[in-house]
Amino acid sequence: MKAYLISIGDELLIGQTINTNVAYIGNALSDINIEVIESSVVGDNLDSILSELSKAASIADLIVITGGLGPTHDDITRSAIVKYFNTELVRNNEVLEDINQFFAKRGRTVTELNASQALVPKIATPIRNKRGTAPGMWIEQKGKIYIVMPGVPFEMKGMMEDFVIPKLSEMTKGNGVVIKKLILQTTGIPESNLFERLGNLDELLQGAQMAFLPSQYGVKLRITVKEKDETLALNRLNEIEQKIRTKVGRYIYARGNETLEEVIGRILADRGLTIAIAESCTGGEVCSRITNVSGSSKYFERGIVTYSNASKVELLKVNEDTLAEFGAVSREVAMQMAEGVRAASGTDIGISTTGILGPTGATTNKPVGLVYIGYCDDKVCTAKKFLFGDDRILNKQRATQAALEMLRRQLLGISDEE
Amino acid sequence: MKAYLISIGDELLIGQTINTNVAYIGNALSDINIEVIESSVVGDNLDSILSELSKAASIADLIVITGGLGPTHDDITRSAIVKYFNTELVRNNEVLEDINQFFAKRGRTVTELNASQALVPKIATPIRNKRGTAPGMWIEQKGKIYIVMPGVPFEMKGMMEDFVIPKLSEMTKGNGVVIKKLILQTTGIPESNLFERLGNLDELLQGAQMAFLPSQYGVKLRITVKEKDETLALNRLNEIEQKIRTKVGRYIYARGNETLEEVIGRILADRGLTIAIAESCTGGEVCSRITNVSGSSKYFERGIVTYSNASKVELLKVNEDTLAEFGAVSREVAMQMAEGVRAASGTDIGISTTGILGPTGATTNKPVGLVYIGYCDDKVCTAKKFLFGDDRILNKQRATQAALEMLRRQLLGISDEE
Repeated sequence: MKAYLISIGDELLIGQTINTNVAYIGNALSDINIEVIESSVVGDNLDSILSELSKAASIADLIVITGGLGPTHDDITRSAIVKYFNTELVRNNEVLEDINQFFAKRGRTVTELNASQALVPKIATPIRNKRGTAPGMWIEQKGKIYIVMPGVPFEMKGMMEDFVIPKLSEMTKGNGVVIKKLILQTTGIPESNLFERLGNLDELLQGAQMAFLPSQYGVKLRITVKEKDETLALNRLNEIEQKIRTKVGRYIYARGNETLEEVIGRILADRGLTIAIAESCTGGEVCSRITNVSGSSKYFERGIVTYSNASKVELLKVNEDTLAEFGAVSREVAMQMAEGVRAASGTDIGISTTGILGPTGATTNKPVGLVYIGYCDDKVCTAKKFLFGDDRILNKQRATQAALEMLRRQLLGISDEE
Repeated sequence: MKAYLISIGDELLIGQTINTNVAYIGNALSDINIEVIESSVVGDNLDSILSELSKAASIADLIVITGGLGPTHDDITRSAIVKYFNTELVRNNEVLEDINQFFAKRGRTVTELNASQALVPKIATPIRNKRGTAPGMWIEQKGKIYIVMPGVPFEMKGMMEDFVIPKLSEMTKGNGVVIKKLILQTTGIPESNLFERLGNLDELLQGAQMAFLPSQYGVKLRITVKEKDETLALNRLNEIEQKIRTKVGRYIYARGNETLEEVIGRILADRGLTIAIAESCTGGEVCSRITNVSGSSKYFERGIVTYSNASKVELLKVNEDTLAEFGAVSREVAMQMAEGVRAASGTDIGISTTGILGPTGATTNKPVGLVYIGYCDDKVCTAKKFLFGDDRILNKQRATQAALEMLRRQLLGISDEE
């Protein structure tokens, strides 16, 4: 089955909104062996939408449309569907009931504008929306499937998980080829270095495909195999994974889409260890990443964001002489911060960050991008120096990732390479 | 001038990477009156890239291509350019020097793979890359402009700012129509409510266009006018803005792309006020948002992330009896946290968050999504109740935005509506 994705919305073309839906849908479809052959974006314009629908139907079996289902005047996808299929709108009572409940739960009153979202094209089966008010639509016509969903990512994802993916999986079972993908997430190693360490890729992959996906958080490796059945495919993936791990295993923090903070959380919870975090340059981002994980209260005791020197001294017992001699951005202060937060909170582990994220704050000896990360437990107290780039927000994200990765390596006893 | 954007990369179709480049480029081009007519994504496949280039050149004057310029085997955009223009690769010494300096600055050695990125198609003027190793390309042929840039957003943005936008602005000056856009950012009011308060849009806009752009942070209003000259366009926008402000001004926190934390930072710095933050449910995210702003150390003194009840008592002097009587997620505790962090740090203002983000933690009386936000200064100590949804990460983002907005309204003396 071949799929074509259409995203609707001026805001996507004019750049007011980042289109995250295509990535999510592309990923979900390729997981169930549906190939996405093209993806396009058109504005909130009836003619553009109609012509894009025709083009998509001429080359794909499945057309997935997102966006333009909101209650306001600039949302015209539903009208386009009515026109394209030459159908009409009818009130759907189940959808109306969903809308009523949605507002009741939030203590708000249903307006006429909201209620009008219960009007659904006659040809469509509505897709219930548990997370918003606009229903989706499932339309089958002349052997093609059309799926229409809201552009709000959270609402679209709910529909995909609850309805679209289960239904499509059922329909595409047993088409002879099994495509399986594996993600290995690395961090702390540049893309070119990773590439060179992996050596001869043809030999490594023997017909499988591999992509390098770099970001400020690290490089993801995506391996794709096509085989006759699931067992063969999984065995091939396993084989390739083992070869990769032999070469760069120390840099791989996760298999699949688990986040670094989830990996760390799992290890801490398993071992019954607790942590406390002292942040200067990362300004709360390390704590925020750690607490993204549900259940993190089991191992995360507290975080202290000490932006001022005074608060470093008062809350973390950083030595004033050390601050004067080495400065706040130093290996010595990073270690004292980590030990200080550990001692103050009585946790097993303390970690810390201190650095200059830019654009201001550099001195002759200390450039923008310089960051120290500290780690202390009952046996080890250490700090590591990093040199990132010039962009404040990227530096913050990199420093946060580096702090979490340092924690992972310490927990797993992975030493630094020389 | 009409533009067509081509994004290259399997990772965009298969959904491993979110395409943020199209939004950025679309926005930058429309700011200089270049209309983006279509945007498409194709995989790392020579034939697809060539056919997309032909299609783009047949309907647009400007073709902007991103992605597939990395050093590894799966990056084939440069080969596609060589083939499409029937040209050849030549070593560019300036680019090689850039690459050498890039690595020297980071204390790394240039490998052969890295050095090969200095090979540039003969027909192209290389676009220097200050933030990475792959150069971009500027190609003019048969009245069309082709711009090729790396897919890494940070590198692409550097090239756009330093070279592409200044050059294109120069070329497109004085084409007779001026398009101007205005963004008004609102938060704390649902899209449908905003829509209804604005009343008759035709009357409000009189031919201008307006879009509603909702996200978990609020709703952005984007107003677009087309006029004969800049003064006319700016006057029209001004007029519309004033009308909108009369109706929903209290919810507008920014004009243009300024972030809520930048708005707050500006007010705090102007007035010489300092703040401290106590976070429970938001886990450091409020501090992280505040410290995204360069110069925030002037007004942000410290943040305390108290995930445990013990740390709330110890660090924020929350009363144990209050915790026992009302629970950690309560108006009373939110107020004590805000006052506690203010008193401990000696700042002018304290703010706090406490809530249940889910998926676990709900009780009979306290559902997932319940959040209290506290605010205290030397005159006022108050807390506000919010009821968000079911998703942990979205709830965190909403609660953080609500805390920052509560701070903004307190600073500006905007009272709650009844």
